[in-house]
Amino acid sequence: MSDVQKTISGGATWQEVAADRRRHRDASIAKVLPNVALPHRVPHISIDELTITNTEVVGLVASLASGVWSATTVTMAFLRRAGLAQREMTNCITELLPDRALKRAAELDRYWAKHKKPIGPLHGVPISVKEHVAMEGLDLNAGFVSWVGRVADKHALLLQILWNAGAVFYVRTTQPQTLMHLETSSNLYGVTTNPFNPSLTAGGSSGGEGALVGLRGSILGIGTDIGGSIRSPAANNGVFGFKPTSGRLPVLGCSVAVEEPEIIKGTIGPLSTSLSGIRLFMKTAIAGQPWVDSPDLVAMEWKKTFGLFAKKKLKVAVMWNDGVVIPHPPITTALRQIAVELQKSDSVEVVDWEPLEHDRAWSIIAGLYFPDGGSQTSKAISDSGEPWMPLSKWILEENPHVKKHSSTSLGSARAERDAYQRAYAERWKQDADVDVILCPAGPSVAPKLDAARYWGYTAQWNLLDYPAVAFPVNAHVGDGTPEPQVTHTPKNDEDRYNWSQWQQHGAKGYEGAPISLQLVGRRYDDEKLLAALEVILTEAGLPTAVLPSVVPQSFLG
Amino acid sequence: MSDVQKTISGGATWQEVAADRRRHRDASIAKVLPNVALPHRVPHISIDELTITNTEVVGLVASLASGVWSATTVTMAFLRRAGLAQREMTNCITELLPDRALKRAAELDRYWAKHKKPIGPLHGVPISVKEHVAMEGLDLNAGFVSWVGRVADKHALLLQILWNAGAVFYVRTTQPQTLMHLETSSNLYGVTTNPFNPSLTAGGSSGGEGALVGLRGSILGIGTDIGGSIRSPAANNGVFGFKPTSGRLPVLGCSVAVEEPEIIKGTIGPLSTSLSGIRLFMKTAIAGQPWVDSPDLVAMEWKKTFGLFAKKKLKVAVMWNDGVVIPHPPITTALRQIAVELQKSDSVEVVDWEPLEHDRAWSIIAGLYFPDGGSQTSKAISDSGEPWMPLSKWILEENPHVKKHSSTSLGSARAERDAYQRAYAERWKQDADVDVILCPAGPSVAPKLDAARYWGYTAQWNLLDYPAVAFPVNAHVGDGTPEPQVTHTPKNDEDRYNWSQWQQHGAKGYEGAPISLQLVGRRYDDEKLLAALEVILTEAGLPTAVLPSVVPQSFLG
Repeated sequence: MSDVQKTISGGATWQEVAADRRRHRDASIAKVLPNVALPHRVPHISIDELTITNTEVVGLVASLASGVWSATTVTMAFLRRAGLAQREMTNCITELLPDRALKRAAELDRYWAKHKKPIGPLHGVPISVKEHVAMEGLDLNAGFVSWVGRVADKHALLLQILWNAGAVFYVRTTQPQTLMHLETSSNLYGVTTNPFNPSLTAGGSSGGEGALVGLRGSILGIGTDIGGSIRSPAANNGVFGFKPTSGRLPVLGCSVAVEEPEIIKGTIGPLSTSLSGIRLFMKTAIAGQPWVDSPDLVAMEWKKTFGLFAKKKLKVAVMWNDGVVIPHPPITTALRQIAVELQKSDSVEVVDWEPLEHDRAWSIIAGLYFPDGGSQTSKAISDSGEPWMPLSKWILEENPHVKKHSSTSLGSARAERDAYQRAYAERWKQDADVDVILCPAGPSVAPKLDAARYWGYTAQWNLLDYPAVAFPVNAHVGDGTPEPQVTHTPKNDEDRYNWSQWQQHGAKGYEGAPISLQLVGRRYDDEKLLAALEVILTEAGLPTAVLPSVVPQSFLG
Repeated sequence: MSDVQKTISGGATWQEVAADRRRHRDASIAKVLPNVALPHRVPHISIDELTITNTEVVGLVASLASGVWSATTVTMAFLRRAGLAQREMTNCITELLPDRALKRAAELDRYWAKHKKPIGPLHGVPISVKEHVAMEGLDLNAGFVSWVGRVADKHALLLQILWNAGAVFYVRTTQPQTLMHLETSSNLYGVTTNPFNPSLTAGGSSGGEGALVGLRGSILGIGTDIGGSIRSPAANNGVFGFKPTSGRLPVLGCSVAVEEPEIIKGTIGPLSTSLSGIRLFMKTAIAGQPWVDSPDLVAMEWKKTFGLFAKKKLKVAVMWNDGVVIPHPPITTALRQIAVELQKSDSVEVVDWEPLEHDRAWSIIAGLYFPDGGSQTSKAISDSGEPWMPLSKWILEENPHVKKHSSTSLGSARAERDAYQRAYAERWKQDADVDVILCPAGPSVAPKLDAARYWGYTAQWNLLDYPAVAFPVNAHVGDGTPEPQVTHTPKNDEDRYNWSQWQQHGAKGYEGAPISLQLVGRRYDDEKLLAALEVILTEAGLPTAVLPSVVPQSFLG
């Protein structure tokens, strides 16, 4: 941008800052997509570009490594498809990066021309990145108007590692005000909607990633997750999203409002259209030995899992609900269908999982998200005069568990967390042979906008720091048999609210929404968890990648 | 004990409680040692018992596993030698456990008689344990008079694992009031002195372990370390003491006064008369998968290191001093001698290590030991009316870094810690080939009583959470050539105090004190660190175990 950036510190109003950011975003897109209405049926994107963006990560890597596609061709295809995902559909990006991405792609193409081999395991793979993950020389506002104008002086560590492996960063994606919604709306960029049904949320806080990957404007992206922020958008958009055990991938370089003692650790991880994309991402990131530069991490290599379930039957424990909020029928139906298929398999044993006081888990973790009582977050909002979004109020002001901690009360809270973690470990030990827990990824498919209020199905595994992956079951609300009539008498306020949503909107209200589930492993069993998911999908007859045909075609013009 | 235990809550004075604890201790010893003065030269302990207790852990394991020695014979030998270490020398134990240890040994002997094989890798190995590590059914006072009468309802997790591997717990050892001295004195048990020179401290806070292992009343013991509490007593008593990376061994079941957010993590680890004892302990403890029951731990197996330095020269960086406090001449001399020997080796490369703001490191960690400003610790003292020990006052009241933290100030302190850890990682990266840092284990040999005031040489590695091992160099003050005359102009108060000690007491004042050093590895490089120590000792011509002849013979009667 040649014009001067509008900032609060520069004297602009919050409305002027937000408008300026949107202008910047639109201008970045106009560089690769003509900013005019096209005649009906003239595609915005070519068949070749569709082919490229419909390819999975591993196939893309192969085509790039062998020189079938150039990095430039691939990058341009994703730039254009991402631009369309934003402009025509979901409002999921904060800016395209055509200049730097194409420059990088050209470098990689020159490298390939000279050496006839890829520069690394991600040679030329375009990767989308949630905005609050620092990119050198670019704004780092984390969703706060007052922070616009803060510029990152270097890439987040994870990006450095992926860059060294050959990645191309080409788009930055939206996040909500405070980063603490399971939806994505901010005063800067507005509301990110669900590509499959615009009355629904894309999820959050990595909702821009979710929507973009859901539309294959990206096939590999980076989100962050402290209560569900990777898994909620992955589930809502029918893609894979993985929250690793904390300490495996570096969060160094992510911008957040709260400088805190980290009793609950944030994580960073991939979203992808394929399970193999998730695994390649993890393997490559950890091969970069992030612990050398980020000494808070665990120096643990990515473990091989080949043949793991050849020796031993995979034992899957199904948690039908968390004992607090009963999921909407489409979720329970999907869970039942997959369980039935798995029970037929000779390779899998299926048992039930009894949840252990998940309501207590929520009260513990919800009391630790804002150990300063929310003052740093409130200040980041109020510094610009921007209005509070409803879900910011909900998690911070209407959340009864938020408290301002002293060192002593934090010590007690930590002890309570530890005791709960041990109790859960004890529960698992009672059936130690269980490899993974199969459960809902949320109490419903993608909620109506501003209705995502129950974090329990995801935050549970943040409190326990268990690795967890959201995955699609290749189905959408309304594309199968009608949902059975279910009667349910809610037991508590959270359950009542969630159930009222189903009663009010029904299957019709959620039509088109992808149906997803979640698989959870023991702490540090990241590798085993992803290996188990492959077994489960295969044995249940489900694809291990999103079928391209599922992606809506509306932006073909 | 058949008589009723005296406690503060039972209405006793602190003096009565302490006297009762000492009576209990002496009675426990009287069960295995006649409580009478013996005629001169009549040994308290037999030649066989001396032979057994002079054996190293690995040899003991072999003799027990093959049935050469019974567990009962071995246990009785260590019970008696431990009793002597207490009564005749150092005041290092809180109680002997003859009844339960001999019962356990008999069980193991029955197992062996039936199966003709050991029950586990530590079959019959007697292990000594610092008092604040919980033992089922026994007092758990952590050095506070007011806590006498608190009884542990189960073993600490580490003890459970070692028990399953065949260990025999036979003695509990002293610790200082607050657990936060690098010495060991309490109102309950008095002062633990150094077996090599009673005017010197045994170190602390695992000073009971240090003195006991120094006297071979134990050849394998358990201490804890958050600022040097394993390494200080190991160094002061001329034995091996290992502080692992946090998260490798479970601290679950250790009693401490401060319930806190754990910005600085305490660790637990072994002291031993041999390096092989340390390694067997670590391997066995981690093979027990402590992370299953203590989910705060890292699920990381004990890594094999065989042949590690066959492929690559071991690169040792020598840190001559920490840039804050200059060690006394015996330490610097020992460091120079070992460096000279290593420089002659074809297997080792030696470079210098430039310390990075170790004074800042101390200010960070010292501000985080008592995040509640010390209120919980103060209360544990005042609840009984027991007097404050001088070093309790020193670390808590005279320590200028102690502050009462809010959540926000803790967040800032954590950020400062993280930044320092990253800066240190960056420093190491500049010479990434360096495997280990060789440095002093303290600013002097065992200090005079109440003079251990500088923690920098050990607490540094707690702040960085690097694994570190103290080891003896097979030398004692006064047994070699006279120390060179050194002039030194102190740069700061800490340096001035330390140097004044040397000026005041000289080599004569520290006569007999073992000389030890420290080896430090990168975070999670625990296995590599211990492998490197073996190479270093071998290449420097030093023994990898304490020579039994070094142990004073005074308790032969």
